[in-house]
Amino acid sequence: MTRRLYLAGPEVFLENALEIGAAKRAICARFGVEGVFPLDAGLDLAGLSPRDAGLAIGRANEDLMRSCDALIANMTPFRGPGMDGGTAYEMGFMRALGRPVFGYTAAAGAYVERAGGVRTDGQGRLRDARGWIVEDFGMADNLMMTGAVIASGTEVAVLPSAPSGDIADLAAFERCLEGMAAQFAGI
Amino acid sequence: MTRRLYLAGPEVFLENALEIGAAKRAICARFGVEGVFPLDAGLDLAGLSPRDAGLAIGRANEDLMRSCDALIANMTPFRGPGMDGGTAYEMGFMRALGRPVFGYTAAAGAYVERAGGVRTDGQGRLRDARGWIVEDFGMADNLMMTGAVIASGTEVAVLPSAPSGDIADLAAFERCLEGMAAQFAGI
Repeated sequence: MTRRLYLAGPEVFLENALEIGAAKRAICARFGVEGVFPLDAGLDLAGLSPRDAGLAIGRANEDLMRSCDALIANMTPFRGPGMDGGTAYEMGFMRALGRPVFGYTAAAGAYVERAGGVRTDGQGRLRDARGWIVEDFGMADNLMMTGAVIASGTEVAVLPSAPSGDIADLAAFERCLEGMAAQFAGI
Repeated sequence: MTRRLYLAGPEVFLENALEIGAAKRAICARFGVEGVFPLDAGLDLAGLSPRDAGLAIGRANEDLMRSCDALIANMTPFRGPGMDGGTAYEMGFMRALGRPVFGYTAAAGAYVERAGGVRTDGQGRLRDARGWIVEDFGMADNLMMTGAVIASGTEVAVLPSAPSGDIADLAAFERCLEGMAAQFAGI
């Protein structure tokens, strides 16, 4: 049976979200995996209030995740130094289900390089412009999300040269699938 | 047996994180709940590389979550318009375990009001300054996290007057515990 891979990421907020979903599914097919895009649920939201529509989408996404064997997350920074919160939520969700969580980013460098105005305080800790401590574990993002990927047996995929930072960039997505294919036969 | 409540939030990045953890535990005790702060794991990180330290903290936090009956998340915006990604991850984790997820914020308004340069496009959709679509479900943050709180039977707690926006503000935390106590006897 073809393994199902949940395609988590902030591309759902792009004008051409459906196209990107189709492109990701096509790449998955080349690796023998069925890509499942959040907008694939085929929900009928007609007549629902905004709040009820939001709740219906959330439930549908959780049902889709439960129907999948693994998740691949677009961890490219989104509206700030870190990744999209909804995608982070979904990584935690799949991790708690005990299913592999993969991740990639189209951005270069560690989280600490993007936190803004980072300096070292008198005790050798990194602080951002507000004085908040910046975690410094050499990871692409928060240790919970990055750790989930590493605990799943891979690394956050990133292209070493000329990272675009573009949340719609599919090059690092493809690199991540190569890593999965090498490590997990059948996925 | 006293219920254990995991205290998720970005306060771990503050200088006085341990003090805030103690203050939250004290408030929990008044509501008959045992507060469990991420930094309570009592890890010995001596001699570990930054990467291994990060992984150890991630594992310890996941073990702590599994040991808890519910989670309360500080959803106050952190380094951007949305909440801390690590906290979002933890909300998804507990939700997948089928345990209640509560949330509060010290910030006023919906996510859409903080996304930056939001305007309405020709099709009535909201866009941010980059042209990315902004979800508009009247929710405090992304529908996955907000939806998890609502699905757990409560609302994201917020103080109606003079919200501080301060991630260390405990007033909305206390309001959230009041809501929990009213709804869940024993929690």
